[in-house]
Amino acid sequence: MTTNMTIYDISEKAGVSIATVSRVLNGSSNVSEKTKKKVLDVMNQYEYTPNAFARGLGLNTMKTIGIMCADSSDLYLAKAVYYIEELLRANGYDSLLSCTGYDLEIKEKSLELLISKKVDSIILVGSNFIYEKETDNKYISDAAAQVPIMLLNASYEAPNVYSIVSDDYTSMYEATLQMIASGRKDILYFYNSTSYSGKRKLSGYRAAMEEAGLLKSGSLMQFYMGSHEDIHAMADQLAKARSKGLFFNGVIAADDNLALAAVKYAQLNGLKIPEELSVIGYNNSLLTTCCNPELTSIDNKLETLCQHLITTLMGILSGSEMPKKTVFSGEIIHRGTTCLQ
Amino acid sequence: MTTNMTIYDISEKAGVSIATVSRVLNGSSNVSEKTKKKVLDVMNQYEYTPNAFARGLGLNTMKTIGIMCADSSDLYLAKAVYYIEELLRANGYDSLLSCTGYDLEIKEKSLELLISKKVDSIILVGSNFIYEKETDNKYISDAAAQVPIMLLNASYEAPNVYSIVSDDYTSMYEATLQMIASGRKDILYFYNSTSYSGKRKLSGYRAAMEEAGLLKSGSLMQFYMGSHEDIHAMADQLAKARSKGLFFNGVIAADDNLALAAVKYAQLNGLKIPEELSVIGYNNSLLTTCCNPELTSIDNKLETLCQHLITTLMGILSGSEMPKKTVFSGEIIHRGTTCLQ
Repeated sequence: MTTNMTIYDISEKAGVSIATVSRVLNGSSNVSEKTKKKVLDVMNQYEYTPNAFARGLGLNTMKTIGIMCADSSDLYLAKAVYYIEELLRANGYDSLLSCTGYDLEIKEKSLELLISKKVDSIILVGSNFIYEKETDNKYISDAAAQVPIMLLNASYEAPNVYSIVSDDYTSMYEATLQMIASGRKDILYFYNSTSYSGKRKLSGYRAAMEEAGLLKSGSLMQFYMGSHEDIHAMADQLAKARSKGLFFNGVIAADDNLALAAVKYAQLNGLKIPEELSVIGYNNSLLTTCCNPELTSIDNKLETLCQHLITTLMGILSGSEMPKKTVFSGEIIHRGTTCLQ
Repeated sequence: MTTNMTIYDISEKAGVSIATVSRVLNGSSNVSEKTKKKVLDVMNQYEYTPNAFARGLGLNTMKTIGIMCADSSDLYLAKAVYYIEELLRANGYDSLLSCTGYDLEIKEKSLELLISKKVDSIILVGSNFIYEKETDNKYISDAAAQVPIMLLNASYEAPNVYSIVSDDYTSMYEATLQMIASGRKDILYFYNSTSYSGKRKLSGYRAAMEEAGLLKSGSLMQFYMGSHEDIHAMADQLAKARSKGLFFNGVIAADDNLALAAVKYAQLNGLKIPEELSVIGYNNSLLTTCCNPELTSIDNKLETLCQHLITTLMGILSGSEMPKKTVFSGEIIHRGTTCLQ
């Protein structure tokens, strides 16, 4: 009978990093004989049977990576999944995807399911897998005791968890500064998610507005009704706010869907874009070229994030020491809904 | 040692339907003693070990359904996957998704992977899994010998394969007739896919145009460059055709993306919609409300198809006799890009 020891326990008891334990399991020559002996002694003492990392060396590996995303009908998440699966395939790995919805209990269950299917690692796509309440993240650190967990555009510190993020705070901060510099003072922030990434974006907007002395009550507007596809409901919410006396000549949106709703609102109410209403979206999605004028949007370099995530994961699986967190910058793509410089 | 007999072989040798074999395995009281004995005799004779159907009764079942789709970044496929996963969860099933791309070899490998993960059934989402060349479909009939295979909006006749389709032919036929009735004679058909569903749509357009004596050379235009997200490249293709002398005052598109490109083309070239150019899209997706005017589109009742598929699957897994093929009608949703009645 084997014990329930994980690679993390081994690394702790031997006083070495997880990557070192992995190198020992890989038979890498990059480990001193002394360290190697220390690790093997702990393994023998606790009757440890390597699982995920052993699979990583071709011992019994299925060469399969689990992927989880909350909602495959979300344009941004769907595109991330698409890139990741393509990159995994190019590296000789199959993938199994589980779309979980936003409920914690289902996320926990799905994570367990993927682990039971003997995947070599699990990639969590999007920032809604990380919760504010520390105990709600236990399902992630538990899973990380079995296989490496990769986070795409979310950040969480735990052994065997790796975070690849876009600097949403700075992107939103700079977009807001640019809109202010173009002469707008009444800039509404239109959002729907309060995930890790959602909060970072909101903070970026808030910081820029506060620095310029322009933050006022009512200028943070959360869309809470209906689905993220109901452009008309979102446009209505903006129209109602305006009719109740809230003036705005700029909208910065946390997602292209919400930005398109601002464009729709302007069209339905005879406002000229960008003269009477400037709009900036987020994600630089397919939607940016669907409207007229086309949408200025923040490109958060999703493809780059995905490429880096897979490079990191391949490094981990081959026993290399890889960075725990990597941050990339976004970029504002100027189109017809703004007159930024 | 067990033989490689499948439930299909058993049904053939015993001269009963697969559903009857399944009922015997389920211990259903709905089978005569005589039939039951016949089935069990065949099983004993060939040392048959039930697999998928045995799992269906709770013997060793993982209650997990495999899903395959070609491209999770395609709006239509992503939405189908979303509905299916939600419905499976509501029925107490987990799901594992594999996004395969369009290459047959990868599809074959992914199907094998899912079967190796001991799923109870596999759902193929979209019509690009079925090939014209009969031998290219062998991977599907092979898999169907192990677990029931469900096709969403594709049709294929083989034991243990079930097809749920939208009547794309009739939807496109009627849309074309309506555009003709609104006074258009020069109607371009703009498409990119030649899948089962793609061909059915094209035939519908062609039939309506031929009946009206309006089909002319050059009016079938396939978009072949770049990605299905490159609205500008598609609009360029239309502009080039026009500049080479092809006149059209109507566009019927096989997908909303392509229809949006027609709207973009009109806007870039100063054509009034719908007066100078009428446009009809397909799928009634999120994109229909993103443009101005909004897009008339064919709703092929995706949610209904998905619901019916899951109802059928749950019936099969509980041993009921279910229809091999079900066809639903689509509906034209009128918006600003047409002046249909």
